[in-house]
Amino acid sequence: MSYNTFGHLFRVTTWGESHGPALGATVDGTPPGIALDPAMLQHWLDKRRPGQNKNTTQRNEPDAVEILSGVYEGRSTGTPIQLMIRNTDQRSKDYGDILQTFRPGHADITYHQKYGLRDPRGGGRSSARETAARVAAGGIARAALDHLVPSIEIKGYMVQMGEKTIDRERFDWGAIDQNDFWCPDATAAKDWEDYLTWLRKDDHNSVGAMIEVVARNVPAGLGAPIYGKLDTDLAAAMMSINAVKGVEIGEGMAAAALTGRDNADEIFMGPDGPDYSSNHAGGILGGISTGQDIVVRFAVKPTSSILSPRKSIRLDGSPTEVITKGRHDPCVGIRAVPVGEAMMACVVLDHLLRDRGQTGGTRGAIG
Amino acid sequence: MSYNTFGHLFRVTTWGESHGPALGATVDGTPPGIALDPAMLQHWLDKRRPGQNKNTTQRNEPDAVEILSGVYEGRSTGTPIQLMIRNTDQRSKDYGDILQTFRPGHADITYHQKYGLRDPRGGGRSSARETAARVAAGGIARAALDHLVPSIEIKGYMVQMGEKTIDRERFDWGAIDQNDFWCPDATAAKDWEDYLTWLRKDDHNSVGAMIEVVARNVPAGLGAPIYGKLDTDLAAAMMSINAVKGVEIGEGMAAAALTGRDNADEIFMGPDGPDYSSNHAGGILGGISTGQDIVVRFAVKPTSSILSPRKSIRLDGSPTEVITKGRHDPCVGIRAVPVGEAMMACVVLDHLLRDRGQTGGTRGAIG
Amino acid sequence: MSYNTFGHLFRVTTWGESHGPALGATVDGTPPGIALDPAMLQHWLDKRRPGQNKNTTQRNEPDAVEILSGVYEGRSTGTPIQLMIRNTDQRSKDYGDILQTFRPGHADITYHQKYGLRDPRGGGRSSARETAARVAAGGIARAALDHLVPSIEIKGYMVQMGEKTIDRERFDWGAIDQNDFWCPDATAAKDWEDYLTWLRKDDHNSVGAMIEVVARNVPAGLGAPIYGKLDTDLAAAMMSINAVKGVEIGEGMAAAALTGRDNADEIFMGPDGPDYSSNHAGGILGGISTGQDIVVRFAVKPTSSILSPRKSIRLDGSPTEVITKGRHDPCVGIRAVPVGEAMMACVVLDHLLRDRGQTGGTRGAIG
Amino acid sequence: MSYNTFGHLFRVTTWGESHGPALGATVDGTPPGIALDPAMLQHWLDKRRPGQNKNTTQRNEPDAVEILSGVYEGRSTGTPIQLMIRNTDQRSKDYGDILQTFRPGHADITYHQKYGLRDPRGGGRSSARETAARVAAGGIARAALDHLVPSIEIKGYMVQMGEKTIDRERFDWGAIDQNDFWCPDATAAKDWEDYLTWLRKDDHNSVGAMIEVVARNVPAGLGAPIYGKLDTDLAAAMMSINAVKGVEIGEGMAAAALTGRDNADEIFMGPDGPDYSSNHAGGILGGISTGQDIVVRFAVKPTSSILSPRKSIRLDGSPTEVITKGRHDPCVGIRAVPVGEAMMACVVLDHLLRDRGQTGGTRGAIG
Repeated sequence: MSYNTFGHLFRVTTWGESHGPALGATVDGTPPGIALDPAMLQHWLDKRRPGQNKNTTQRNEPDAVEILSGVYEGRSTGTPIQLMIRNTDQRSKDYGDILQTFRPGHADITYHQKYGLRDPRGGGRSSARETAARVAAGGIARAALDHLVPSIEIKGYMVQMGEKTIDRERFDWGAIDQNDFWCPDATAAKDWEDYLTWLRKDDHNSVGAMIEVVARNVPAGLGAPIYGKLDTDLAAAMMSINAVKGVEIGEGMAAAALTGRDNADEIFMGPDGPDYSSNHAGGILGGISTGQDIVVRFAVKPTSSILSPRKSIRLDGSPTEVITKGRHDPCVGIRAVPVGEAMMACVVLDHLLRDRGQTGGTRGAIG
Repeated sequence: MSYNTFGHLFRVTTWGESHGPALGATVDGTPPGIALDPAMLQHWLDKRRPGQNKNTTQRNEPDAVEILSGVYEGRSTGTPIQLMIRNTDQRSKDYGDILQTFRPGHADITYHQKYGLRDPRGGGRSSARETAARVAAGGIARAALDHLVPSIEIKGYMVQMGEKTIDRERFDWGAIDQNDFWCPDATAAKDWEDYLTWLRKDDHNSVGAMIEVVARNVPAGLGAPIYGKLDTDLAAAMMSINAVKGVEIGEGMAAAALTGRDNADEIFMGPDGPDYSSNHAGGILGGISTGQDIVVRFAVKPTSSILSPRKSIRLDGSPTEVITKGRHDPCVGIRAVPVGEAMMACVVLDHLLRDRGQTGGTRGAIG
Repeated sequence: MSYNTFGHLFRVTTWGESHGPALGATVDGTPPGIALDPAMLQHWLDKRRPGQNKNTTQRNEPDAVEILSGVYEGRSTGTPIQLMIRNTDQRSKDYGDILQTFRPGHADITYHQKYGLRDPRGGGRSSARETAARVAAGGIARAALDHLVPSIEIKGYMVQMGEKTIDRERFDWGAIDQNDFWCPDATAAKDWEDYLTWLRKDDHNSVGAMIEVVARNVPAGLGAPIYGKLDTDLAAAMMSINAVKGVEIGEGMAAAALTGRDNADEIFMGPDGPDYSSNHAGGILGGISTGQDIVVRFAVKPTSSILSPRKSIRLDGSPTEVITKGRHDPCVGIRAVPVGEAMMACVVLDHLLRDRGQTGGTRGAIG
Repeated sequence: MSYNTFGHLFRVTTWGESHGPALGATVDGTPPGIALDPAMLQHWLDKRRPGQNKNTTQRNEPDAVEILSGVYEGRSTGTPIQLMIRNTDQRSKDYGDILQTFRPGHADITYHQKYGLRDPRGGGRSSARETAARVAAGGIARAALDHLVPSIEIKGYMVQMGEKTIDRERFDWGAIDQNDFWCPDATAAKDWEDYLTWLRKDDHNSVGAMIEVVARNVPAGLGAPIYGKLDTDLAAAMMSINAVKGVEIGEGMAAAALTGRDNADEIFMGPDGPDYSSNHAGGILGGISTGQDIVVRFAVKPTSSILSPRKSIRLDGSPTEVITKGRHDPCVGIRAVPVGEAMMACVVLDHLLRDRGQTGGTRGAIG
């Protein structure tokens, strides 16, 4: 019911606005005895942090996370973990001229309509900065997963920026961390860099992106019918990220174009249990993990904070044109990569805990 | 936390298997005083019911819904409404040969892995038949919406079947109810009919589909940051439907290809409040409705229950080939149309109730 | 959020009115593979069933429970279990004269005030008959507990009826099932019988009761801080039963009168782990079970449905006197005994599942 | 599901340990536009704050609350409000000697058994200090109630300390704020002061207490059947407070001793609607408020942190005696008064919002 909470047994509530004193996440239900320290969380926050390269906003926030509760002598106690990130670089003056104006494509107008007031500084609650709290919480989920199922790996990367897509033939896991775009295609990454520079400097524009997140070695059996499906929770988790407009599992929207014969993932008996000829299903059947890679994609719209003028209205209904001069990412999708990873980690951990709660973790034998 | 529940203030829990005595929905939180009778729900169930034409499964179920509680003298009392649909046509023998076999693309294997046992008759809990319960619950949501905001209209239709898409130039609201596909393009509908007949009879195959659901005249201000977004709940609601692999709001996955300039929905002052030049956002900004049409699309994979043999394994791990001889839809997407409408109705009502709970329904003035 | 739901991982939603077609419970989250059949549930329902002896209402309902889903070949499948009990003896005419009248001490007036309408037949949703659904759900919880921790025993009994209390010196577990009052003091039971006969026949009155429910051999470690405490959930579970006005754990309200020295349960090392000199705490410290007996008491008010006239008003505000002629229990507390047991079983199972979800069931060693 | 959360539409999650850097509450679902500033919350925190008089612990914490989010220019924005209270006076050395020892009557042993580790400093999460977060959250609830239903008043007071009870004949609302015990009987308060001084200084003991909390002018119609009852949520809310062992509504446990004739609150038509001859029900019928005073009582056990030696065991199972030398309240019940008020405020606000969500706040007319 809570508006700002996700998860069930492992439950995350985020709070905070872009330009208030701080933002963070209240994380409840962490298994006890998990090794945790701020540096582990900082590792993931640093991936998301703006100001690291010229392709992301030049706002410079250290995004240093503090653990205020729930950890004693470096281990989780099982009680709520409060993660706080102070807002240190709050140049509110950049936003002064939009106080009376609704930016097209922003939540300014709907917050005003719903609540009758809003914190206009930096997008307030709807700022992309909120995702820092998710990344910090995701760091806790990763630590717990490492402890419970060490083989699980979660990795996100960009597969499309604007109309430019990666070439799956050149897919290289090793390339992902080697460029500013978390792009698994090194050739594409170079092309994207030139494009984004032009877009930002010359075109005064922004661009959308598509991110893919994969979870490998997730045990079979996580998830549940019918509304508590693993894919239901993943869809909700990804759609809850700012600017996301679509979510896909496996074939995703392309499944509409397939026939049953083509879409079938045939089953074989492998050395470690059932094996599949393909993974159109994205690792989930009937809402429950198959043991294959869990594959999720989501689309991030281009930010509407651009230097090109766009028509809008003021609070008094009068017409105006909006140019957003603040420091903004030309492609917010880049920073959505670690956010998507964090959401995947949180959802998988939650389902792992729920599954062992209901079933005790026992599995039906095959073969 | 409940696995089979969705919604918050208006809350639906579905139950039942394909071949048990009955299935249904427990609906809690309905506003009191809403006019309700079984015939109103039956209207929507009849849209979903199989056996109506040759393009859907020939299983013949009357799908007659009974209201067991929560309605007194034709009006909702505010207490839980129990909706029950008996399973009358349970030809379990059709499924006898798959008791020991996992059908590729089905939940057979994951249910077995998770629970150690499963009801193999007709897919058990993962049968598409479960969606009848959602449609019945959606009928209650529609009745409540009619009472609270009479102008709201919710309409679903197919926009793609396999590789065949509608021509948006020929889009005709009036055509939707005039063909077996709920297709707004009458020309496409004829073509689809020929294709599906061939696919079923000659190709022994099935095909995917894409459904679009639109809610019109939804007031601005429904939804909430950050996880309780309207789009988060819509994504979860649609992804929870059997066989759905992707969900989009507005531009959806295509938003990845757009620039900020192209994606901006410019704002003007109209006679009744803010108006927009376009609706790339699908009627939702920052998780909150703008007052524009809410536009959701989802992709339904082709059913894996086909007459063409597919490789699989048995419970003992031995290899086998599966041909599914039961009565199955060549395109389950057709019957997903009323299901998508029902989920939209439930989510919109839930957010309407939650919004008036928190804000009292007051709105920030513009102009 | 759901109004008619309790529990978290093991979750029960009850539905139905006293004089509708049926009532029941939707039970979600049951561990898979639990042996279950209607006869097992019927055993507990028969304890609660009215019409068995002259001390309870003469309404004669077989209260036969049907399992509509979630059980296949005698074992739970892990999917929702729908339990339905038909209302077969619906003498609505008994209630005709109270259609326009609010009975003092009944929910008639508050339902009307909240919802603007109500099902007046037999108390509608607020009928004690609703508790049959809880008892059926409790039967499932008991079966699951038997499977998971066979040594757990749950037993309820009456310790007070009106001003008459049991003598703890005469407490005899064996006596509980030997009298109509589930009274552990056989001498008191005889006295109570005479008193209740007089109260019903001569005094046209009703009387309150106090019930104690004990859960033995519950493992240490169930529960959680701060709001998810085992005692929080037990208090809510018992207070949710019709007519309950107070709930106590261990010393309960009497703890207010004790000093710290007297209230201390001193700890010793026993052969199987920590042992305690006393159990003032009622088996719960800091919201978590200690391994001692969990002891809960609750008070049931006397039913206001009596043959003695009581002043009230009609729907139009005019004054009237109410005499309730229907078939009613002179002491509803008697039938609350199996209800209290059922709620205890549901809460303990829920916490058992939640605990193994979060902690995996591992325990900190002592000694 | 969350372990440390209560409420539904108005939802509070508390976090933090006694001796960590800070503790606080994450408050979600506050209506927008409510005037809020730290001073308003501080007013209530100061009531709970230790170190104010000799009858409470001499630990000196300013308990200054900071609002980190959800408030803009002095008004709530409708987004989550983060309340943080720093722990400034953390004399951990006081607790050094209990690191290896389980204090009788404390959560030390159950935390260890459940989680395998615990933060031993000052009781960690189970410290009474956690209640400061509830009081802060309650301050927000009070501000929202003041805005929505200005006539609502919430007042708590002690009615019993040890075996000493107030004389209801001397009940004086004005006396409550005039003594250290929030006692409505000025004569009793003087007696209690002498008793408590002796208990602390000479007897090295502690004592239990009973608190009553009344909410006046709560509208009829709040609450819901069957599990979402107003009394269910109040029972859970009060039982979730540290050291509480029993909760009563209206007559409470004493209802067991009454007859139906005596317990009936007869109904009359008053000038402003229905009126009642008495309030045995404590303002709630069928889980729904009647418009009368809502009356809740709860018992607080005596703290087990006393200077008198008590037998216990160490982590290694060896026997020991425990004397708790830290700064502890001889009667923790005193400080539970503002905590009980805060919980009442949170529950009433939550039900007010839920009610207007479901029913729109319309009421059935009488007369």
